[in-house]
Amino acid sequence: METTKMKKRIIIDMDGVLADVYPALIANEPIYANTLISPDKLNGIAEYEAFPHLKEIVTHDHFFRNLPEMDNAFNGLKYLNEKYEVLIVSAALEFANSMNDKLAWLNDHFPFINWRQVLFCGRKDVINADIIIDDHPKNLSVFNGQRFIFTQPHNTNITDPSYHRINNWNEITQVL
Amino acid sequence: METTKMKKRIIIDMDGVLADVYPALIANEPIYANTLISPDKLNGIAEYEAFPHLKEIVTHDHFFRNLPEMDNAFNGLKYLNEKYEVLIVSAALEFANSMNDKLAWLNDHFPFINWRQVLFCGRKDVINADIIIDDHPKNLSVFNGQRFIFTQPHNTNITDPSYHRINNWNEITQVL
Repeated sequence: METTKMKKRIIIDMDGVLADVYPALIANEPIYANTLISPDKLNGIAEYEAFPHLKEIVTHDHFFRNLPEMDNAFNGLKYLNEKYEVLIVSAALEFANSMNDKLAWLNDHFPFINWRQVLFCGRKDVINADIIIDDHPKNLSVFNGQRFIFTQPHNTNITDPSYHRINNWNEITQVL
Repeated sequence: METTKMKKRIIIDMDGVLADVYPALIANEPIYANTLISPDKLNGIAEYEAFPHLKEIVTHDHFFRNLPEMDNAFNGLKYLNEKYEVLIVSAALEFANSMNDKLAWLNDHFPFINWRQVLFCGRKDVINADIIIDDHPKNLSVFNGQRFIFTQPHNTNITDPSYHRINNWNEITQVL
């Protein structure tokens, strides 16, 4: 069924790629732990380790509804959406009460993405695509296509040569 | 990565396969249209035509939370879940407020299905699997694998020879 005219399909993660979760985790962790988080000490540390109350934080009070947009994500996603067949794929099923918030957030921040382009799942390795942009090696490692790792503090020391590292949305529009 | 030991992956639809939507549509349409629906006159008629107020019905009052389970679906799905790698895939994004209800309904009726096995999407043709069970030709026709059409009134006159017709969950456990 593939023809040379068909656009390549790209799957794009939400948290840590479109939505900037770290500022919100840093702001919320002290509420539970009564300690301050140093943003400069988060590199190379898994999120669950850096934020011991991560589960409580993200399941509380519409956490995903109010996240800031990653810098330049709007123009970057708009660009990709014209050039590629874009699917927004989020492992939202892990925190089931996040689904409505995530969809409302998407509609709000990226109104040019329609509901047919959204997938909420428990695992991403069952989705057919040519390219992935994700911050988590667990999603990248099982993907059979071009893999782009979006820099986030937890993945800074990942050096898998099969991942093409991108540090921000400006780089995405240069490379893709 | 495939080995002969791996289970085949099967994607299973919710509405019209696991959940019995027709009794609820038949009961609700007269509320809007002030007319009675004859169950024996629904064969071969598209759902949107048979139930002109379908959209209002399914977006109202936790419609998906209270659907009856299809006859013998519990034992049938339990059987498939042991033999295959089961994914429950629902085009829930069309009616976004249905996602929480659908997940709660699944947990309630099929507690042996975990969240990693669930996908809510806008389109099913991007999912990689070996077998599909669905009542809608629009989902079956784009699937590259074994296609099972689950009999529902709207699909009774579909005769595509590439679909294997199954009329109920007892037949599924005999054939699959």
